[in-house]
Amino acid sequence: MKTIKLGLIGLGTVGGGVVRILQEHHDDFVRDQDIDLRLVAVASRDSSEAHVLGIADIFSTDGNDIINNPEIDIVIELVGGTGAARSFVYAALEAGKSVVTANKALIAAEGHDICTLAASKGCEVAFEASVGGGIPIIGPLRHTLAGNRITSVIGILNGTTNYMLTRIDEDRLSYDAALAEAQAAGFAEFDPTADVEGADAAAKIAILGTIAYNTDIHISQVPVEGITAISPVDLDYAREMGYSIKLLGIANRTPGGIDIRVHPTMLALDHPLSSVRGVMNAIYVVGDAVGETMYYGAGAGSGPAASSVVGDLIEVARHLAYRESIAQPVWDTEALPIRSIDELITSYYLRLSVPDRPGVLATTAQVFAQHDVSIYSMVQRGVHEGCAELIYVTHAARESAIRATLAGIEKTGLLTSAPVLIRVEDAKA
Amino acid sequence: MKTIKLGLIGLGTVGGGVVRILQEHHDDFVRDQDIDLRLVAVASRDSSEAHVLGIADIFSTDGNDIINNPEIDIVIELVGGTGAARSFVYAALEAGKSVVTANKALIAAEGHDICTLAASKGCEVAFEASVGGGIPIIGPLRHTLAGNRITSVIGILNGTTNYMLTRIDEDRLSYDAALAEAQAAGFAEFDPTADVEGADAAAKIAILGTIAYNTDIHISQVPVEGITAISPVDLDYAREMGYSIKLLGIANRTPGGIDIRVHPTMLALDHPLSSVRGVMNAIYVVGDAVGETMYYGAGAGSGPAASSVVGDLIEVARHLAYRESIAQPVWDTEALPIRSIDELITSYYLRLSVPDRPGVLATTAQVFAQHDVSIYSMVQRGVHEGCAELIYVTHAARESAIRATLAGIEKTGLLTSAPVLIRVEDAKA
Repeated sequence: MKTIKLGLIGLGTVGGGVVRILQEHHDDFVRDQDIDLRLVAVASRDSSEAHVLGIADIFSTDGNDIINNPEIDIVIELVGGTGAARSFVYAALEAGKSVVTANKALIAAEGHDICTLAASKGCEVAFEASVGGGIPIIGPLRHTLAGNRITSVIGILNGTTNYMLTRIDEDRLSYDAALAEAQAAGFAEFDPTADVEGADAAAKIAILGTIAYNTDIHISQVPVEGITAISPVDLDYAREMGYSIKLLGIANRTPGGIDIRVHPTMLALDHPLSSVRGVMNAIYVVGDAVGETMYYGAGAGSGPAASSVVGDLIEVARHLAYRESIAQPVWDTEALPIRSIDELITSYYLRLSVPDRPGVLATTAQVFAQHDVSIYSMVQRGVHEGCAELIYVTHAARESAIRATLAGIEKTGLLTSAPVLIRVEDAKA
Repeated sequence: MKTIKLGLIGLGTVGGGVVRILQEHHDDFVRDQDIDLRLVAVASRDSSEAHVLGIADIFSTDGNDIINNPEIDIVIELVGGTGAARSFVYAALEAGKSVVTANKALIAAEGHDICTLAASKGCEVAFEASVGGGIPIIGPLRHTLAGNRITSVIGILNGTTNYMLTRIDEDRLSYDAALAEAQAAGFAEFDPTADVEGADAAAKIAILGTIAYNTDIHISQVPVEGITAISPVDLDYAREMGYSIKLLGIANRTPGGIDIRVHPTMLALDHPLSSVRGVMNAIYVVGDAVGETMYYGAGAGSGPAASSVVGDLIEVARHLAYRESIAQPVWDTEALPIRSIDELITSYYLRLSVPDRPGVLATTAQVFAQHDVSIYSMVQRGVHEGCAELIYVTHAARESAIRATLAGIEKTGLLTSAPVLIRVEDAKA
């Protein structure tokens, strides 16, 4: 049996979970994997958690103590973000140490450079925990599904927003009440911007798209819309028409390049992703041989994220211990173009708030016609005195035509509040 | 780049799918995996498919030509069953060749011996395709979830029966009509015994239990009940009470040993498995760190099964090519007892057909009381003249007590047809 020595930087929620698994399951890993996984050093800003976990004797407040420790084989980076964490990851690889990380922001921004550096140093970089928490998804994409040409990856990748949409849908909470509840329950941060505006999901779909299509996708290439404009009436209208509304990260292979985006999406109620409720995450993957598959589980939290970190640790450790040769990280063996969202063709739901008076419907309908956008259904409802809502659902149309239509409608001066646009994901469109 | 030479025995639906993937994606595997996967010999009883696939030049009707070919590194066994296929697998391993197979019957019966032989020969055996068709499940259990103590594996593992139950539920087809439809659609065999009586699911849960708990589970240790007694009224009663009925393979870790069984099960409608419809399969896995996860996809068919076979091929080939060391198959590092189903404690649904006359309800109710089985709910319905149905749902009770209760009720001579018993899977029970 071989011993592999681990150094951990970052002792927050996930770091604590990793320490507990390594303590509780050490002997299982010896028995099942023939590996003695030994945590020899831990660094974090605050030492209080180290005392609780009984690891004060190997604790330091300086992450560089981990990097500079020559006996450490694998560095576990759980600081997060692209500041200090970035330096630790590069320094560890430069020092010839393999890295296991949950850092979605860093991998979505610099995955190519990090994997290239790792390969040049004969090291591994593993980041299953960066997407979907405890859900095995990078592993299946890289290994079990490796015989497929993947054509579509669609994910509910942010638990906070899925929780909010579930609460708005099932209990008619307002957006603000749903957010307050998510914060009270500890799902949402005090500053929920990265969740509700979609940046968190964008980093994750950039990583999944990269792995699925072997092409480098930078987070800045992902068009993003969050859920801040969604209100209970949109969920009501959606359900009437047979749809759920989910904040989806979407990455499709198309002849013109990779179609990648994050936005609230109307999804047929019988789609497997539509029944994913609350804080759960799920990723739907279509391959040319396997057809439809889906992976479901907790997208965040101490245990789930730690589960993925330790799964990676065991893999990397086995490679190191038995010189099973390093698993060279495939990052961008194909160099596919990213398609502009202007070229997207799908159906659209538009909710327009307008004055309730003659001619308004005709005027707006005419703008759709001017831009050759064909209407699938239209409903007008009085909302309160003098005000109405027009709910348009279009046939498949080009994103650029919808944008031009919306601009045209805004120019009429009729809108009494900002329009709500939701893309409809519909295989039949 | 290294070349790995493959020999395929069995050119049925799955074999044809594997050949097509190897032809279409050969260059992808060279680019992404740095492996030249070369199919050098194919054997099957019938040569017609070989002509269609353009591989007549490497075709033979004798599987031993594959075993005896010294240049072959990996044998793909897709004959199935425990006859000729068994000999090919043992002979391949004896000859020092690694084996990739989709053979659930063989692995569920002799997995321990096969893995032991492989290890002694320094070979690999991989069988992702034996369970869940294209769904990545053995890979995630062995790798991404390796940091967990798995506590529960519950699967919809047979597409034919799930299709039939879906049709009975949604369109009130009779059992016979649903079976005829499944046969017409090509999902069910002409002889559907292995599907409808549960043997197919039993082989698969035996394999999943073995992998999840690192303990050898032989298919003969799995108590099995099929769906032949289920009728539309059971699905109606279930839905009224908030349940679906699914044929589940269940393997739980309990203090007394592994609780493993296959039977029709009532499952809360909001359980992730309840929304799995038609021929799709899904496996629900709970781990101590990761919590609930689920894996969903097509459980059978040429493409899905071939996807898993080729995923395994790429893994084994990379290990062979780059001496990433052989992945030693973990089969039974823990030796856990299998718990008797008599010790199962759960809720039960019982439907009793009885004469519609005074005293019958009291007589049956008394039998429950005699055996200390507490009733959660009871409904009596007139069915047709002189006949009634008693629908009992019990509180949590011991399987042995329910069996004794049923025997006691049968002894009253009141039953006008065989009773229907369905276990209720309910975390609250």
